[in-house]
Amino acid sequence: MGVLFLCRLLSPFPFLVHPFAECPHARPCYTHCFMLKETLEQGQQLADAALDRLIPLETQHPESIHKAMRHSVFAGGKRLRPVLCMEAGRMVAGSLPARIEELGAALEMLHTYSLIHDDLPALDNDDLRRGRPTCHKAFGEAIAILAGDALQTQAYEVLARLKCPAEARVKIIEEIAHDTGTIDGMIGGQVVDLESEHMRPTAEMLEYIHRSKTAALITASLVSGGLYAGAKDNQVARLRAFGLAIGLAFQIVDDVLDVTQTSEQLGKTAGKDTASEKATYPALFGLEASVRRADALVNDAFAELESFGESAKTLKELARFLVERKK
Amino acid sequence: MGVLFLCRLLSPFPFLVHPFAECPHARPCYTHCFMLKETLEQGQQLADAALDRLIPLETQHPESIHKAMRHSVFAGGKRLRPVLCMEAGRMVAGSLPARIEELGAALEMLHTYSLIHDDLPALDNDDLRRGRPTCHKAFGEAIAILAGDALQTQAYEVLARLKCPAEARVKIIEEIAHDTGTIDGMIGGQVVDLESEHMRPTAEMLEYIHRSKTAALITASLVSGGLYAGAKDNQVARLRAFGLAIGLAFQIVDDVLDVTQTSEQLGKTAGKDTASEKATYPALFGLEASVRRADALVNDAFAELESFGESAKTLKELARFLVERKK
Repeated sequence: MGVLFLCRLLSPFPFLVHPFAECPHARPCYTHCFMLKETLEQGQQLADAALDRLIPLETQHPESIHKAMRHSVFAGGKRLRPVLCMEAGRMVAGSLPARIEELGAALEMLHTYSLIHDDLPALDNDDLRRGRPTCHKAFGEAIAILAGDALQTQAYEVLARLKCPAEARVKIIEEIAHDTGTIDGMIGGQVVDLESEHMRPTAEMLEYIHRSKTAALITASLVSGGLYAGAKDNQVARLRAFGLAIGLAFQIVDDVLDVTQTSEQLGKTAGKDTASEKATYPALFGLEASVRRADALVNDAFAELESFGESAKTLKELARFLVERKK
Repeated sequence: MGVLFLCRLLSPFPFLVHPFAECPHARPCYTHCFMLKETLEQGQQLADAALDRLIPLETQHPESIHKAMRHSVFAGGKRLRPVLCMEAGRMVAGSLPARIEELGAALEMLHTYSLIHDDLPALDNDDLRRGRPTCHKAFGEAIAILAGDALQTQAYEVLARLKCPAEARVKIIEEIAHDTGTIDGMIGGQVVDLESEHMRPTAEMLEYIHRSKTAALITASLVSGGLYAGAKDNQVARLRAFGLAIGLAFQIVDDVLDVTQTSEQLGKTAGKDTASEKATYPALFGLEASVRRADALVNDAFAELESFGESAKTLKELARFLVERKK
């Protein structure tokens, strides 16, 4: 509430129409409408340009797989993981490290591969993603499975070629592979999520799913961005704790939006979690308590960045944005 | 024929029963029955032990995914890629480099991930692999998709932690990711293979499929083994050319065996290529010409290793074994 009030008070444009649809405030404010909008847009542009350079063209043989990869990667994603990665790198180095957007692009490829496979009929069986047909709906199941595989493979090729010392590259690869794997990583979370359908999950199980399925890759984004910029061990530990907290908050908000928003607002099928009796925060704790928990997690996350001082400002604003977003 | 005759003539055990079922000769011979048997068995044991150390136990949470990964990895594979990798390392370094079997294990994980996904109903729809139910038959499609994903992820975590300099590790990761990707790599080959079903493929298309789908990972095994042992650029180039030739020969022999052997002999469904009108060498060129081409490729491959002298002996024998195998 403090931040919200301050934003309104300090807004130099109190009577303008909102220039930034994602701003949660009643009046345009500097932090959300201009600073954060610029950070997000600059990050998205850099990530998009890197993805376009690093994923083979649709005309390249064999065309179908490259069309499918690009269909899912360029479907209007928010590029949150690349933006978090780049801002972590900027915070550690003091300015945006050269070509860090290629690391961001690799993270987005891994995120997209997981979405393509999660949407398959054998898993979540989703027809719509970001307002467009899912990969298997557009290209068939076989190509969708292979497009997911190929995005994972391509991500590691990009990571191996990053423009940072080889020692940092292998640390980044180890971190990302671990956080997307089966032990407390993205795949582990997806497995438990699948197996918890049609049962009333315990709070412990739900926390495991959210931490592993979502928070782990968000953590990897922040930690790898820091490693790219030469972060020391204690800085990496801070970034990791920050990532786990905002990653969990992000997934809680995702669960809340699934209940409170429409399919059109989300750009994906709303209410699916309830329909499939999925393990979600609102189902277990109710809407209000879920929103409160997300807010508390963001405050915990802020504390982790204290030692970075003023340079942590943008990452903190991004964290706040994650829990106040509408889609 | 020369090698075959020489083996018979030099055999110190002309009247013994064959101790090595894979030997193509009428009488037991030193090269196939003892030297090669030892190389293969030692390589298989090292690779199996490394795989057992590096893949989470079946009892580790979440159990189902680790059971599925182990089901497919420990299904009696020949471990050819690890053995080729280790022998390339031995040839370059003069002795087996310490812990190179972990690189071999990562290659086997990548090979197994590709088999699990290829067997899925949306792709080859195979129920039997190495005489056992395929992963999706045993664990369901969702877990099989995720087990394939997880083996790829785990492979890169292992590669990032290899016991060689970080500079060599990133080169190895770049090589392997490229050779398993969409541009002249394993996934590209699988895509064209899928799309060539139910049409008469051109010789050019068939060569692309075999080079990309099979020869590329065999090449990656040899090149990465060399890089692990500190190979120079010219040695890497020789290993790459050797790998492409024997990889192509290996796949031609695979096509031939699909026609000439039974399901029991192969441990997988025989005659599937013909039934699904798949692009194969025998279908396009006939059986005899296919066998001749495989033999010629192995001779081309031998020429690439001339500069390595005596130390190339085992790799050459392995190459010969690949075209003379019965399953």
